[in-house]
Amino acid sequence: MTNRQITIAELPTDALTPAHFKQVESAMPEAGEGEVLLRVILMSIDAANRSWMKGATYRAAVQAGDAMPTYAICEVVQSNSPKLAVGDIVEAEATWSDYITAKAHKVQKLPKVDRLSHLMSVYGIAGKTAFHGLMSIGKPMAGETVLVSAAAGSVGGYVGQIAKALGCHVVGIAGGAEKCQWVQDELGFDACIDYREAGLSKALKAACPNGVDVYFDNVGGKILERALNFMNEQGRVVCCGAISQYDTDNPTGPRNLPGVLVVKRLKMEGFIVMDFAHNDAKCIRAMQHWVSTGQIKVTEDIVEGLENAPAALIGLLAGDNKGKRLVRVAADPV
Amino acid sequence: MTNRQITIAELPTDALTPAHFKQVESAMPEAGEGEVLLRVILMSIDAANRSWMKGATYRAAVQAGDAMPTYAICEVVQSNSPKLAVGDIVEAEATWSDYITAKAHKVQKLPKVDRLSHLMSVYGIAGKTAFHGLMSIGKPMAGETVLVSAAAGSVGGYVGQIAKALGCHVVGIAGGAEKCQWVQDELGFDACIDYREAGLSKALKAACPNGVDVYFDNVGGKILERALNFMNEQGRVVCCGAISQYDTDNPTGPRNLPGVLVVKRLKMEGFIVMDFAHNDAKCIRAMQHWVSTGQIKVTEDIVEGLENAPAALIGLLAGDNKGKRLVRVAADPV
Repeated sequence: MTNRQITIAELPTDALTPAHFKQVESAMPEAGEGEVLLRVILMSIDAANRSWMKGATYRAAVQAGDAMPTYAICEVVQSNSPKLAVGDIVEAEATWSDYITAKAHKVQKLPKVDRLSHLMSVYGIAGKTAFHGLMSIGKPMAGETVLVSAAAGSVGGYVGQIAKALGCHVVGIAGGAEKCQWVQDELGFDACIDYREAGLSKALKAACPNGVDVYFDNVGGKILERALNFMNEQGRVVCCGAISQYDTDNPTGPRNLPGVLVVKRLKMEGFIVMDFAHNDAKCIRAMQHWVSTGQIKVTEDIVEGLENAPAALIGLLAGDNKGKRLVRVAADPV
Repeated sequence: MTNRQITIAELPTDALTPAHFKQVESAMPEAGEGEVLLRVILMSIDAANRSWMKGATYRAAVQAGDAMPTYAICEVVQSNSPKLAVGDIVEAEATWSDYITAKAHKVQKLPKVDRLSHLMSVYGIAGKTAFHGLMSIGKPMAGETVLVSAAAGSVGGYVGQIAKALGCHVVGIAGGAEKCQWVQDELGFDACIDYREAGLSKALKAACPNGVDVYFDNVGGKILERALNFMNEQGRVVCCGAISQYDTDNPTGPRNLPGVLVVKRLKMEGFIVMDFAHNDAKCIRAMQHWVSTGQIKVTEDIVEGLENAPAALIGLLAGDNKGKRLVRVAADPV
């Protein structure tokens, strides 16, 4: 019995392509003392995957030859630890693989729920990132205007829906008329601006007549530069990601930084979802409430098959997903 | 009797030169009902003066033909208000002039002190800007590393001296070997790096072996970009000004923004000294304490004569001052 894995054939220097990946077959890994053998069920596809290929971040850089790292939901199929039993469902730092081994104390046991994918979307990394960044850094108040880029993405969609639930005027930025329509119609944003159209500044002015109090930035670059010009005094910029800067070696800095921060007394702050793990229970309780009232819709974009993981990531970087993108490697256990 | 004023002959589009100013003689202004006639004694020369010429900031843009605005210490020479008497010393939003008029309720009466200049340096805009930005945004702790750009400038010098008094490792950045030596020897910084020398990154690494916890940024641009690379996780960037960006119409944005904020969970926040006026009493008490213990030295750079105000500002933008730059228009009253 062999194990499929997808490794980095070559590190990208500019845009990511299928040629940067290679599918390999290797022997089934064996769980050592204190370890578990895990079947990968769902893998989280994130823009951050691309940034890990650019060098050390909050984790070590990914190297050519490595299996691509990912957060995954897995089922325990063999256990050499008293902490976990066969059939347990866990979240693990995995790789793009059918099977992996992990130290039992390094994985987190998950509750049994009807749909495991929800543990990576609304109650997982996407929902938690949206909630913690918006609530702990953005601190929006009813009546304020919240602007969100990558609004059709996994995090942006939840940011806007949470802000709407809190009573804010919510404006999204996304790529393409169809996605913008979906953000308005399906997610209930007050407006969504297509950044691929000319006239971003004019559109921002029209959609945010009272300026912007909180900008939740997933993209960096030119869109961040424009958004900063519409911030109100004492506004908050939540730095969640910089997807426009990941897939290139020629990043562009917003030319109005840091001047605009001084003039408008703005705060910009970056975060990683794990920084707020101590507040996860509060987050899940709130998200469950809003899902139960229908104020938050669960958005998922599931690509079938391990072999399609490279295309799923390349597509994500090009913005072709709506909602949280996952790759399903195996069916949910029944 | 006439009144000398210096007006904007033409707004600069790039570097400021003497040709952008014009000295004019006009009739003595007359104080109306509720107004006072003020003799200007000392004018504050700030990098912000240049930014006011670039468009509306936290104040309306300065226009060609306007007398150049400034914060000034003045003596009341005629009063049409019961609130102020002849001989009172006040701080006012003035212009580059021998005499101005102002509404009595718009000026702030100052205490009588031995040296009026101290009310603009250590106990004035420079000291307050340093104290409020460092304490309220930077929040340094003993044992942390504080990095300050424009360290020989009016604000930077106080920032470093306060941080030393708090027990921090303090590193400055300034232009020229002689100024750097002065920052170390006279102001007691642990190190001061000459940004005009090659190898800024190497010098930062050597001077900040434990990384940077607080960066007090007065300059923006390339130096900000480099400094961000040396920040520790959870570091704080105090955005006080962007002097490198004021004297040009071609600003450059730090290319590592916003990515580095996410990876390192940094906070960048801008402020204006007036935002913290409610804490001014606390600030003055602390500064008086540190001056009394010798931990803070008062640094002033006083240029004599209203006619020299344009050169004083142009020189400040080129970095030729050490400590708080003022222009003396009239002698302190005896």
